[in-house]
Amino acid sequence: MRISLIGAGNLATRLGIALKAAGHDFVQVYSRTEASAQTLAKMLGAEAVVQADKLHSDASLYICALKDDALPEILKRVDVGNGILVHTAGSLSLDILKPFAAKTGVFYPLQTFSKEREVDFKTVPVFVESSDKIVSYILKQLAVDLGSEVYEITSEQRLKLHLSAIFACNFVNYLYSVSSDLLVENNLPFEVLKPLILETAAKVQTQPPADVQTGPAVRFDRKVMDRHLAQLEKHPAWKTLYKELSVGIYQRSKSTQK
Amino acid sequence: MRISLIGAGNLATRLGIALKAAGHDFVQVYSRTEASAQTLAKMLGAEAVVQADKLHSDASLYICALKDDALPEILKRVDVGNGILVHTAGSLSLDILKPFAAKTGVFYPLQTFSKEREVDFKTVPVFVESSDKIVSYILKQLAVDLGSEVYEITSEQRLKLHLSAIFACNFVNYLYSVSSDLLVENNLPFEVLKPLILETAAKVQTQPPADVQTGPAVRFDRKVMDRHLAQLEKHPAWKTLYKELSVGIYQRSKSTQK
Repeated sequence: MRISLIGAGNLATRLGIALKAAGHDFVQVYSRTEASAQTLAKMLGAEAVVQADKLHSDASLYICALKDDALPEILKRVDVGNGILVHTAGSLSLDILKPFAAKTGVFYPLQTFSKEREVDFKTVPVFVESSDKIVSYILKQLAVDLGSEVYEITSEQRLKLHLSAIFACNFVNYLYSVSSDLLVENNLPFEVLKPLILETAAKVQTQPPADVQTGPAVRFDRKVMDRHLAQLEKHPAWKTLYKELSVGIYQRSKSTQK
Repeated sequence: MRISLIGAGNLATRLGIALKAAGHDFVQVYSRTEASAQTLAKMLGAEAVVQADKLHSDASLYICALKDDALPEILKRVDVGNGILVHTAGSLSLDILKPFAAKTGVFYPLQTFSKEREVDFKTVPVFVESSDKIVSYILKQLAVDLGSEVYEITSEQRLKLHLSAIFACNFVNYLYSVSSDLLVENNLPFEVLKPLILETAAKVQTQPPADVQTGPAVRFDRKVMDRHLAQLEKHPAWKTLYKELSVGIYQRSKSTQK
């Protein structure tokens, strides 16, 4: 495929590199940030552009990996010709692309991406949605080229999938940062929690999370919980979170034991 | 060391196996559940007892790994003679052992343990506290035997450490279970989130969690967040959590950018 990338952020970077390695050609890379466009274009052997209307209309596939709110504004200025236009967002419907192209699709790789961290796409499930069977075939083939598991789901399912990923990734990372802040306050290095964090993630690879839930909230052990809450006087928001998460754990555990 | 174990749960099991492998001898294993006492005692080549007052008073070390609230009740019935009495709890002070022995200590390995999952103690930091220098020396040596990093901390520090572990492990696991429940509701397998969960945990092994925070809450992207909240109508408690965690992420991101 002759591909143009619209966006040069974390996802665009990792996906671009992986598709290039799988033998695809890149024509152009757009980013409004010149340095980002240049860096990624160079890696992909493509031309960098900083104005969306400088994208040629002869690519066969346009992959748009922009921030959700920037997407309509930028696409307005892009002529994709007869090409397929695809976005990579978890929470945007396929329909949002309708005004900009006849053949549209979604290619949503479910992973957290950083420009600097290598990702093995063989472990990344990809969720596709398409305006028609040809687009569907092409997007599934792209996923196969990457070695990814591929699933066909609707926009509504993808939104719910994205929501569960928010809980399992973004919210989890926030709890890591709370635990790190608590340690720093206490002159202990975050280092000491790292094995626990890895093992907690490793456990649910083989067992359902509700089955391996531990901690004082499972038994709603008030003595321990009160001792913890007393440590959070300076942090009312964390205190509230502590209470609500504990109630959630207790109720979930009761329903599992039933 | 000639050790008796008071308790035969997850921590007692993994710690007993690891200390046995490091060359220590076990005299007796107490659990009020006969099957648990038998199983662990057999693995450790020790005698199983189901009544606490049947524990001999000639062991050199008594490791008490009971549920916090069971501890005083059981220890009342144990005569440790001249032995050292140690507990393994994150949120109990050293003082709680004073009525039961002259030489006391805490040996707190920071990890989530399951009876069935092997644990490499070389990756488990151990936090010790002691009534005197001799106990301190002995407990540090035990940790060294296991290949663990060992830290000397106070009861107050340990309580705060335990609190941060609750956030990084118990609460994180609960978020995994919420994400799993959301997927199941949506006829998608939890399978698809597993690589994301592992990568999220892997990222903070090399970078501070606040530096790798992603998601719509970082920019407080109301459009995306409202779409998610609309999916949670059936789950008012998760909706509240979603809002509070998002506010937390937004405020933490602002403070990091300062």
